[in-house]
Amino acid sequence: MSGQSKVSPLAPTSFPEIPPVDGVRFATGAAGIRYKGRTDVMLALLDKGTEVAGVFTKSKCASAPVDWCRAQLGRGKARALVVNSGNANAFTGKTGAKAVKRTAELAAAAAGLRANDVFIASTGVIGEPLDAEKFVGVFETLVSEAAPNGLFGAAKAIMTTDTFPKVATARASIGGVEVTIAGMAKGAGMIAPDMATMLSFIFTDAPIAADVLQKLLDKGVEPSFNAVTVDGDTSTSDTLLFFATGAAAKRGAPRIDKASDRRLKDFREALDNVLRDLAFQVVRDGEGARKFVSITVEGAVNRKSAKVIARSIANSPLVKTAIAGEDANWGRVVMAVGKAGEPAERDQLAIWFGDIRVAHKGLRDPAYDEEKVAALMRLPEIAVRVDLGLGEGEATVYTCDLTKEYVEINGDYRS
Amino acid sequence: MSGQSKVSPLAPTSFPEIPPVDGVRFATGAAGIRYKGRTDVMLALLDKGTEVAGVFTKSKCASAPVDWCRAQLGRGKARALVVNSGNANAFTGKTGAKAVKRTAELAAAAAGLRANDVFIASTGVIGEPLDAEKFVGVFETLVSEAAPNGLFGAAKAIMTTDTFPKVATARASIGGVEVTIAGMAKGAGMIAPDMATMLSFIFTDAPIAADVLQKLLDKGVEPSFNAVTVDGDTSTSDTLLFFATGAAAKRGAPRIDKASDRRLKDFREALDNVLRDLAFQVVRDGEGARKFVSITVEGAVNRKSAKVIARSIANSPLVKTAIAGEDANWGRVVMAVGKAGEPAERDQLAIWFGDIRVAHKGLRDPAYDEEKVAALMRLPEIAVRVDLGLGEGEATVYTCDLTKEYVEINGDYRS
Repeated sequence: MSGQSKVSPLAPTSFPEIPPVDGVRFATGAAGIRYKGRTDVMLALLDKGTEVAGVFTKSKCASAPVDWCRAQLGRGKARALVVNSGNANAFTGKTGAKAVKRTAELAAAAAGLRANDVFIASTGVIGEPLDAEKFVGVFETLVSEAAPNGLFGAAKAIMTTDTFPKVATARASIGGVEVTIAGMAKGAGMIAPDMATMLSFIFTDAPIAADVLQKLLDKGVEPSFNAVTVDGDTSTSDTLLFFATGAAAKRGAPRIDKASDRRLKDFREALDNVLRDLAFQVVRDGEGARKFVSITVEGAVNRKSAKVIARSIANSPLVKTAIAGEDANWGRVVMAVGKAGEPAERDQLAIWFGDIRVAHKGLRDPAYDEEKVAALMRLPEIAVRVDLGLGEGEATVYTCDLTKEYVEINGDYRS
Repeated sequence: MSGQSKVSPLAPTSFPEIPPVDGVRFATGAAGIRYKGRTDVMLALLDKGTEVAGVFTKSKCASAPVDWCRAQLGRGKARALVVNSGNANAFTGKTGAKAVKRTAELAAAAAGLRANDVFIASTGVIGEPLDAEKFVGVFETLVSEAAPNGLFGAAKAIMTTDTFPKVATARASIGGVEVTIAGMAKGAGMIAPDMATMLSFIFTDAPIAADVLQKLLDKGVEPSFNAVTVDGDTSTSDTLLFFATGAAAKRGAPRIDKASDRRLKDFREALDNVLRDLAFQVVRDGEGARKFVSITVEGAVNRKSAKVIARSIANSPLVKTAIAGEDANWGRVVMAVGKAGEPAERDQLAIWFGDIRVAHKGLRDPAYDEEKVAALMRLPEIAVRVDLGLGEGEATVYTCDLTKEYVEINGDYRS
C-alpha cells in the first residue's frame, strides 16, 4: 500500500476550525473491524426533530447500508448516524442486511432510540461479512462521550485510503439568524485500493424540512460531487447525508418548509460552497494525483450534453496521462470530444489550456506558443476549456491526472 | 518513448506465411512524412472490378481520410489503397480535406486511375497539416514496384507505436473453389501515444458484391474489432476496409450477390477468424500490456446489455490495475457491473476467474481457494466470467491490463 503513507501534494496546507453545530454531538471509537491502533467507528447523535435528506450511488449493486438508508429516508427523520471504516458491508447478501440491522439496533439501544432512527454507512473492504457483534459495548461508551466538538475526529475515523481528513464549514443567515453548516467527506475519488467509497455527511442547525433539504441537496450535488471524477469508477457505497437539527429555531431562526422560500438564498449558497469544497478535496486526494484539473465545456447544445463531453474528457486515460506528463496534448481532447457521442462539429472546436488557445476552428492555433503552454502545464492546477461553438450549454467537471502511482496503489493492494 | 523499443510480451512467437491474393499488389516507400530511415507509405493496387466495404470510427471528430473514404464508399468500387504513417491528417480542417484529395490525385495519376478509385488512410500525429507534396514522385516508383507478395511489408510500413506487425490469413471454399483472405491491422489499441489509430485492411480474391461484403463486415466486426478495448478511448481515424478483387472468378468461383447465399458459409467463418485474429493482435500490442484478458458476461437480459456490462468491466481502471497486480479482486468486477447502468441483481451475481468461482449469489464463494486463484492470476491470459442470472444475453469483450508502462508511454510522449 505504497501510496498511502504520503499525504497528497494537493492536500490543503491547513484545516479550518470546525464550529459545533447545535444539536449534533460526535464520538469515535475503535471497534477493531479491520484496522488496529486507530479509530474505525464514529457516532453522531442528533437532537429530537432532526430532519434528513440523502443521495446515494446509482450502482445496481449498492451496499447493504445504502439499502438501509434508502429505506429509512422516506420518513425524513434521523436521530443518529453510525459510520465504520474497514469493511464496506457490500456484496454481502442477506448476512449484510442483517449486520446493518444489528448495528442500528445496538446503537439505538445504547442511545435510547429506535433502530429506524439510525442511519448507517460503511466503507472498506467488500465481500467480507461485517461482524456487527464487534460493536457490542462500543456504542455505550460513544454515547457517554459524545460531544459537540468532535467533527474533525469523526472525519479521521472514517478515512480508509484518504491521505488527509476532509472537512468544511460555512455560516449562513436565515431570516436574520445565523446558522452553521459543517460537513465531512471521505474517499480518494470514486475509487480506492479497497474499492472504497465516497461518503459525506453535512450537518446544520437550521430548521429546514426534509423535502426542502432533499431539493437543496439534489441541486447542490450537480456542480459538486456529481462533477468530480477520479477514474469514472462508481462505488457501490457512495452516500451523502444532510442532517438539519433545527436547533437554531431556539435562537429565532424561522422554519423553512418550501424550497422556493427566499430566505434560503444565503443558506443555499453556503451549502453549495461546503459541497464544492468537500468534493474538490476528494479530487485533491485522488489516488496518485499530482494535478487538480478542471474541464469546462461551453458552446454545447445544452448543459447535459456539455457535461457528458466534459466527463468524457475527464475520464479519458489518454488525456489524464498526458496531463501527468505535463503535455498539452489537445489532440487527445479532440479525441475525447469525438467519442462522447454528443453533437460536436470538428471544424468549430476551440481548445484552451489555461488562457492559451491551442486549437481554433478545427485546426491547431498557429499563434500558440509551445513554451508558454509548457510552463503552464507544470503548475499543480490545470484548466482545460473547450468551446464547441454550437449553443449555450456549459458544464465543468473536476478531475486529477493519471499517474504511475495510481497503477501502483491499485495494482499492489492485495499482494 | 520508453515502452516502444520492447516488443510486447504478448506478441506472437512467429508470423504466418501470407499467400498472395489474386488481383492485389503491394508496394511500400519512404516519403519522409515524419519518420526517417523507415517506410511510411504503402500502396495497394487492386484489379479492375474490385468491390469494397468499410466500417469507420463513430467519432464526431473523424479525420479527413475517414471523410474521404466514407464519400467514396457509396459506389462500392476501389482500385487502390494508400496508407501513410507519421501523420493522421486529423483535426486539420479544410487543409486536411485538400491534402487527402491531393494524395488521391497523385496516386491516381501514377497508376492511371481516377482519384475517386483511391481509398486513403492515415495514422500518426494529429493536428499537424499533412504535406501531400511529399508524395510527389513517390507513387510512380510504388506503382512500378508493386508485387503480389508485399502484404507483410505493407503491414510494417503502417506501424506507428505498434511493437509488431499484425497480419492474418485464411483460405475458404466458395462453390468448391478455394479463395484467399489476407489482412493486416495496426494500432496499439484504440489508443497510442500519438493518439493513433486502429487501421485494418482485408483483401480477398473472392467475387463478392460490395453490399454483401458490407453485411459480412458489419456482422464480423461485432465479436472482433468491436469487442476489443485497450482503454476505451476511440480514435478519430479508425478504419477497416475490405476489398474483394473477384479474381477467383477466373478459376470458377461463383459471384455472390446475396448475403443469404449458402455458399458463403465457409467464407464467412474464414473471414470471422481473420477479423478476430487481427483484433486480438491489436489487444496483444496494447500499450504496456502484460495480460490478455477476456471478459464474458452471461445471463444478461439480452446480448446488448451483456456487452455494455462486459465493456464496463473491461474499461474499468480498477479492474485493469488489479489484473496488472495479479489480484483476483472480484469486488471491483461487482463495482463495474453495478456502474454499467444495465439490469443486474446483486444477489444473483456469480463471478469466475478462469474456472474458479470466486463469488456466488451475491456473496464470496466460501469454497474458493485463494492459492489456486493466485496461481491462475500469474498466467499471461486471464478469463473473467460473470453470470448475472437474469436471462440469455451473452457477450465477450477482450482487453489488456493497465500497467505503469501504459502511463509512462502516454505521459512521456511529447516530452
